Parts: sequence; structure tokens; C-alpha cells
Amino acid sequence: MNIYEESLEVHRKLKGKVETISKCSLNNKNDLSLYYTPGVAEPCREIAKNKNDVYQYTIKSNTIAVITDGSAVLGLGNIGPYAGLPVMEGKSILFKEFGGVNAFPICLDTQDTEEIIKTIVNIAPVFGGINLEDISAPRCFEIEERLKELLDIPVFHDDQHGTAIVVLAGIINSLKIIGKKREECKVVINGAGAAGVAVAKILLADGFKDIIMCNSKGIIYKGKENLNWMIEKMAEVTNLSHKTGTLKEAMEGADIFIGVSAPNCVTEEMVASMNKDAIVFAMANPVPEIMPDIAKQAGARIVGTGRSDFPNQVNNVLAFPGIFKGALEVGAKKITEEMKLAASYAIAGLIPDEELSENNIIPDALDERVAQSVSEAVKKRAS
Amino acid sequence: MNIYEESLEVHRKLKGKVETISKCSLNNKNDLSLYYTPGVAEPCREIAKNKNDVYQYTIKSNTIAVITDGSAVLGLGNIGPYAGLPVMEGKSILFKEFGGVNAFPICLDTQDTEEIIKTIVNIAPVFGGINLEDISAPRCFEIEERLKELLDIPVFHDDQHGTAIVVLAGIINSLKIIGKKREECKVVINGAGAAGVAVAKILLADGFKDIIMCNSKGIIYKGKENLNWMIEKMAEVTNLSHKTGTLKEAMEGADIFIGVSAPNCVTEEMVASMNKDAIVFAMANPVPEIMPDIAKQAGARIVGTGRSDFPNQVNNVLAFPGIFKGALEVGAKKITEEMKLAASYAIAGLIPDEELSENNIIPDALDERVAQSVSEAVKKRAS
Repeated sequence: MNIYEESLEVHRKLKGKVETISKCSLNNKNDLSLYYTPGVAEPCREIAKNKNDVYQYTIKSNTIAVITDGSAVLGLGNIGPYAGLPVMEGKSILFKEFGGVNAFPICLDTQDTEEIIKTIVNIAPVFGGINLEDISAPRCFEIEERLKELLDIPVFHDDQHGTAIVVLAGIINSLKIIGKKREECKVVINGAGAAGVAVAKILLADGFKDIIMCNSKGIIYKGKENLNWMIEKMAEVTNLSHKTGTLKEAMEGADIFIGVSAPNCVTEEMVASMNKDAIVFAMANPVPEIMPDIAKQAGARIVGTGRSDFPNQVNNVLAFPGIFKGALEVGAKKITEEMKLAASYAIAGLIPDEELSENNIIPDALDERVAQSVSEAVKKRAS
Repeated sequence: MNIYEESLEVHRKLKGKVETISKCSLNNKNDLSLYYTPGVAEPCREIAKNKNDVYQYTIKSNTIAVITDGSAVLGLGNIGPYAGLPVMEGKSILFKEFGGVNAFPICLDTQDTEEIIKTIVNIAPVFGGINLEDISAPRCFEIEERLKELLDIPVFHDDQHGTAIVVLAGIINSLKIIGKKREECKVVINGAGAAGVAVAKILLADGFKDIIMCNSKGIIYKGKENLNWMIEKMAEVTNLSHKTGTLKEAMEGADIFIGVSAPNCVTEEMVASMNKDAIVFAMANPVPEIMPDIAKQAGARIVGTGRSDFPNQVNNVLAFPGIFKGALEVGAKKITEEMKLAASYAIAGLIPDEELSENNIIPDALDERVAQSVSEAVKKRAS
């Protein structure tokens, strides 16, 4: 039985990976009177007097929603809200297991941007944070930005920022090993969806200067046709030398390649054309842009993927549980750029310099220290 | 410390009565691969092929939403979605504890009927049922009816049907004790909100013929001014003798009084004017329409209230957990009128005839047999 067959079987047995349970015992009439009527009227009255007391008396203090519209689920594409539910449940249990954050999956039966925004605003009172998930670009950018304006709770699109935070963590440690300065690195990002855009933004925020983004039609430059509004914005702040051409041409002489794109789109020759001590993060899932052994053979010094069966797994689970744990604990209203950067450095910092090596640039996905460390970094930046 | 102060303190300590937990252990990379990526892709693919498989692989099989807009919370009125959350959490844990049904609270930041309907439709994919709660009349009627048309999962407004089911259960057993026939009973219902309307409907469905509804302005009759559309409909099927006047006048010669209205609105004199062997359900909370000892003194033979500190507590918790347990287990798409009636008879039937007495007409709210018995009755009517 392969992993897919096995997974189907455990899902059939479980009929749901998340469970809601009571934190109170309900054994006698006094319990009913305390947790339900008439006693419950008292916290209701307090919150009616002061809305902010909802954090004192309810699950809002430590519960988030994991929300998708099913439009870009894993590598499966637009499979809709029903088929997306197993992934949202999976994400929800990771939030709880790694970050201690209660998370409930919400799958939206609409893919209309305005309706998604309105629906999320309408259900927000219960939640202390909103984790957006697997919503296709460029709608995901507008949805996240608008919700951040409309809501007074943290909103975080994990496909963007979770990925970006962990990629930066890996790059921070990679640069320590190879000894290059970020200001001098030429970076190529292949894939201009949610992840690609967010990776570019966080690298710019961290001080990288020379970034070229590519999509399936090659290098992205200012004035290129058929770019969505977000990529047009990115074209203003990347590729400052206004290079044009193919991904192959972009990669010539590059120091860092970051793939959040498609299987097997990078050749041995392309990696060989990169600068000395090349860093290659090939994160297409489950089949990377180039297999790690081939990339190494072609001269890459450090290779990361999204997979757990190779070294240097760049996995969002290193970021999202700690991000929300910290934000909720400190009562942050937003996840700021500073928090995201701090999270990257917290993740990177868990590997002491003396333990860093080409095959050990990033903590293990199951490393229990990570969420704690990320949450502390987030809390520090919030105050 | 009174119950309100004590409740506030436990709510402050708990910071939320519901918790989401993982049903899976996440101890190693294989667990991650099974419950999350890449394995989770397989149930996703199966559901994408056949939407109905969502019941095979996800929480939809056994999870409902407890939804309010905060417009009519307990007796507290329109306190809004934030202040309503402690009640929805309380309801959610009762669903789990008594019915084994996972329930998650959703508090809507809108009181617009169309927006409420749209929002609930949009979030429905995750849920196997929708329990509406504490939504003011007459909007609650339209919201429930429209959702029943739009969704293929059970929708149940507990303030209406939960109350009605348990009231009927109490009446069924009361009639056994006093030996009157339902066809011959004159019933007065005071309160024409969600509960009053639903009680009238279920009594009609059970064979009662002579029902008079009253609101704060007295007897409701066909053609009375300022009735909402639902009460206009009720005026067609109740008060067939077209009586007019006050509540006091309605109660003269009545066999059964059911109050879902306001504290202290029924006097000793009004109860004394009722027929011999009068049944009085005074369910305003926390202060009933008339206190049980006074009603008894005035000649009522059987008295029920909503309170746990008097005999014959008419409590919705006897109905809603078993209703959804049964509906989910059998995969019912609707809660039908037949199911509601069957639930009433199942609740009533738990007290054997030889144990029935004026102070024992209805099972205890904590009686563990109730949800099982109700769910079996519901399942039988579904098939």
C-alpha cells in the first residue's frame, strides 16, 4: 500500500481529523447553570458592555479559522471547497499540535472575491485570527489586503507568507555557509503566484537588491504584457536592470534560485550556468523543479526542496503555528512585515553556526522548539 | 458568590469552553505524510471526483455549526455576535456531551436577512448540519425556511423546534395524567416569537384543534393589525372561533397555558379562571410568567418551567443533541415534521406510565438515555 492508499484508508476510518471537545465537565445541574443558563448570561452581559472582553471569556482568545475557497489546493488546482476540506483539517491539526492554537476549517462555497471577503468579515467575531489557505493568485492578494483593512484580527495567507518566511530562514543560513553578502547576490525566483510574490517581497525587505522573477513565459519585466496587478507592482521593484528573456537566461550567473513553480522545469545545464556556490531551492511539490542529486551534480552547493525525503525541507509548518501562537498570545491586530522577518531569523537561529552544513540549513519540521521560538520572536516585534 | 459571579469567574479561567483537538497523532514524518501532504491529496482527489465522498473522509459527517447573529440571545435581547458567543459555546459543548456531535460556534457580524442566508450558504461545505440559535423573529422564520431550500443538510432553529418538541413531550405526559383528549383541550400560548409559533405548529401537527395565541397586545386573530407575515399565517390556523380580547380573557376556561413570553405576566386569578386540572407551562427565563407555587395554589394541577430548581423543567437540551445525532447518523437532508413529533414521543416515552406524576412529566435534563432515544426515533422517521 503506498502513502496515498494508506492515507485514504486512515481518512475513511477517522471521518474527520479535527474534533471539537468541551473543556468543561457537565455532570450535574450546577455545571449546566455555570456553563450554560442562567450563569452564561453574565459573560454575555460583560461582553455586551465592552466588546473587547470577548477575549477574556471566549474561544476568540485562542482560536483561528483556516479558510479556503478550494481554488488552488496543494498541486491539485481548483478542486473546490468540498475536496479542499481534508487539507484544511490537516492544517488545523498542525496548528493545534505545533502551536497549541485551536483551529477550525472553513471551506467557502464561493470563489467570488467580494463574496469571500464579505463572508469572512461576517464570521470573524468568533475568531482571533484568519489563516487563508490555497486561494489562487491574484485573488489571494486582494482578499488578504482587503481583510487586513477590514478586520482587527491578524490575517495571514500561509501560501504567501508561510512559504516566504521559511525560504528566507533557509537562505539566511545558506549565506552563512557560503559566505556571500545578500546585497551582492543575484536571486532568481521562478513562479509568480502567491508564494513567488511573497518570497520576492520578504527578500527585498531583508535587504536583497537583485531579484528577478520569472513566470512560465520567462523573465518578468516592467511593461511586459498580460501581467496581473500584483505582478505589475512586483515588476517595479524587481529586475531593476530590465532584463528580458527566458528562465534559462535569468539563471546564468545567478547565486540563488528559488523555484515555486512546476516539476522538472530546471535542467542540469541551467544550474551549471549559475555562479559558484549556487543555492537551489526547488520547491515544486511533490516533484521539484530539479531533483536534488542532479542539481548537486550540476554544481549547486546547497539544495532545498519541499519534500521530507531529502535534506533541507522548506516546510511552512515551521512558520504558521508559531506565528499565530505569538500573535494571539500578545493580542496583535496584524502580522507585520517585521514579525515575518523576525520569524525567519528565529527559525534560522535554531541551528547554531557550528552545526550548519550544506545538508542542515533549516530545522526539522517536527522540531518542537520551532513554534515556541517563532512565537517569542513575533511577540517581541509586536510590543 | 452567586451563580452569575461564579460563572463569570469560570469563563475567565477557561477563556473558551470549546476546544479543537486532533484525532491523529503527529509524531513523525510518516504521520505528517499520512494526515497532511502528500497523502492528504488522495481523499481530496476522491472528493473532487464525487462530492458526496466528503461524508466518507471529513468532519462533515459529524460536525454542525451553532449559528447566531446575536439578535435575541437568551432573555438579554439584541446583544450582538460578540456577546452571544458564550451562549453558542455553551450550546456547542452540550451537543458534544449529550449527542456526541462535534459543534462549532459561529457568530455573524450582520443582522441582515439576505446576508445571513448568503454567509451560511457560503460556509456550509464543512458542516453536516446547521443549528440556528437566538435569531429574532420574524427574521428567524425566513432565514430557516430559505436555508432549508438552499442547503442539502439539516437546518434547525432550536429556539423554535427544540422548545416545541420538549413542550409537546411534557404535554403528552401531562394529558396521560389528567386524562383529557387533545382534541378537546383549549390551549393558550402566550408569546408569538420563535418559540410560540413553533409550539403552536407542533401542537396542531399532533392533533390539537383549539389553540389561541397571544402577544403582548392580547389575543391574536385573523385581521388583527401589525402582525408580521408569520403571525398572519398562524392567525389562519389558530383561534378558529375568532376570539378577541386580552390574555386574561383567553385563559378563561382554557385547559393548557403555555408561556414563552415575559416574567410575571400571569396572575393567580388568571390561572384560577382556567378549566379543572389545568396545565401551566410558564417558561419565561429566568423569571417565569407565574411562579409554580402560586400557579398550584391557584388551581393548576401540573406546572412546568424552564428552570432547573423546580420540577418539570422544559429544557431544549432534551431535544437538540439527539435530533442532530440521529439526523447525522442516518444522513438525513432535512429535519422533518415527522421527526420532530417522533422526538417528542421519544422524550415523553422515557417515563413509564407508572412513574408519571404531577411533578414528573418529563425526563431530567441530564438523563443520558434521552439523546439516544431521540436519535433513534429521528432515524426511524428518516428511513
